[in-house]
Amino acid sequence: MVCVLRTIGLFLLAGSAGAFAQTAQGLTANDVIQRIQAHVGVPWRTPTVDTFKAGDPATRVTGIAVTMMATYDVLVRAAASGDNLIISHEPTFYSHLDKTAGFEQQHDAVWAQKEQFIREHHLVVWRFHDHWHMHRPDGILTGVVRTLKWQAYQSQTEPSLFVVPEMTLADLASQMKDRLGINVLRVVGDPAMKVTRVSLAPGASGPEHHQMLLHRDHPDVLAIGEVPEWETIEYIADASAEGRHEALILLGHIPSEQAGMEYCTEWLKTFVNEVKVEFVPAKEFFWLAK
Amino acid sequence: MVCVLRTIGLFLLAGSAGAFAQTAQGLTANDVIQRIQAHVGVPWRTPTVDTFKAGDPATRVTGIAVTMMATYDVLVRAAASGDNLIISHEPTFYSHLDKTAGFEQQHDAVWAQKEQFIREHHLVVWRFHDHWHMHRPDGILTGVVRTLKWQAYQSQTEPSLFVVPEMTLADLASQMKDRLGINVLRVVGDPAMKVTRVSLAPGASGPEHHQMLLHRDHPDVLAIGEVPEWETIEYIADASAEGRHEALILLGHIPSEQAGMEYCTEWLKTFVNEVKVEFVPAKEFFWLAK
Repeated sequence: MVCVLRTIGLFLLAGSAGAFAQTAQGLTANDVIQRIQAHVGVPWRTPTVDTFKAGDPATRVTGIAVTMMATYDVLVRAAASGDNLIISHEPTFYSHLDKTAGFEQQHDAVWAQKEQFIREHHLVVWRFHDHWHMHRPDGILTGVVRTLKWQAYQSQTEPSLFVVPEMTLADLASQMKDRLGINVLRVVGDPAMKVTRVSLAPGASGPEHHQMLLHRDHPDVLAIGEVPEWETIEYIADASAEGRHEALILLGHIPSEQAGMEYCTEWLKTFVNEVKVEFVPAKEFFWLAK
Repeated sequence: MVCVLRTIGLFLLAGSAGAFAQTAQGLTANDVIQRIQAHVGVPWRTPTVDTFKAGDPATRVTGIAVTMMATYDVLVRAAASGDNLIISHEPTFYSHLDKTAGFEQQHDAVWAQKEQFIREHHLVVWRFHDHWHMHRPDGILTGVVRTLKWQAYQSQTEPSLFVVPEMTLADLASQMKDRLGINVLRVVGDPAMKVTRVSLAPGASGPEHHQMLLHRDHPDVLAIGEVPEWETIEYIADASAEGRHEALILLGHIPSEQAGMEYCTEWLKTFVNEVKVEFVPAKEFFWLAK
């Protein structure tokens, strides 16, 4: 990251002349990331997980695939479509910090095949997580709200709070499932309960963040990506058992943030037009046993 | 815990005379825990989460409720049944270490009502997690295997590995769902894939443990309680996309370990017979949106 940060200054100093030089020679992955850093609207923070995870940043970009999670399936589809820069919201190598030493040590075949595919197709994978959330408004939330068609219900002061037309919890869950295109959506609480205040916390923002939203905004429903069962899930189950007007919707991590990366694709196109920029959705992982 | 550990010695020195004295006066919660410590068959390890979480350890026990998770619903049912010592495998207060300071500071109503119910009903809650897993054989695994009726398929050298009669992944998932009484069981992998080697890791044993099982035992299917999507879930999805013969079954945390606490109830009855000892199952949290 130090290297990338140092070159931002040079890029900014170079201005439009630098941009022209890049166009003439072809954009590198590094050029694209520098443009993102210049456009994201917040100072670049370190440490951050928004770093290159695989491939050579000096690679000339043939096409950009924006995705929620750089799964093997996403990489295959991106490469087949002629993309070689993959911008992923979530990890590539199975942990928040994408540490690969353990897999290397174990000669792990799954990891090795993914690395090999990346190498053979000259792919570059870069993560765009922290700063897309830090973008104002939060890039993930913005995309998700648009796909939910909930813009009119969004609080002006607390963007994660929505006051939707009153409906049952079961109907709200079905609406979110339909609009976000979710296969498996789990719910905790009374299905018949009437709800109108919804706090939306896509991804895995953690029990402390969930508690903050619950205490500050008093929603009827907290809708999140995922959390361990013994944390917010047990808490809301208890609230419900105590007779409180509270429920939890677990959208799943990928479906809860995916639309935010579709929006990121459009945002990226506003300042990268030399190469194709496309959204390659990650598939939801789960099916249900009968 | 220091206090409890110190008194174990006294209890053991006192021998059967001590046991008689307890019977005459009525067993305290502390007496019961000391008996568990004396019978569990492994040295008591510290630090451990196996500590009192609420109530007064000197309380005379009227009945013991053994459960997977001391939810509010479980406490209400236990108290209604005349139990005042609750032995829970999982946390009571929404985090692995059951820290309550944050809830107290926030005047959290859900936590406060649970605390109040415990106080008003003179309940004592004690966690039995680490040492029930350390019991040989692992108390949780033993109970789950019995409920799955998989004893004949269990590896003699690696107790978490099972070689079941060949069937499809979809059929295996349905069998586990039926036998463990699960409502929502999620699966990753090809439903039509033929499977026979199954690694069973109930609860949330973590991605490092999952990796160890995968590398050591090469199962077709890893069946776990829960894990974040970007860890073992993405890994198995990648393995499947790479064409490997690997799948993941997510049983849910509570259903994946619950039978292990049913077995704990029976084990406890072998050395606690002065009071009623009963299994109070925690309800599965989830229902599915349509």
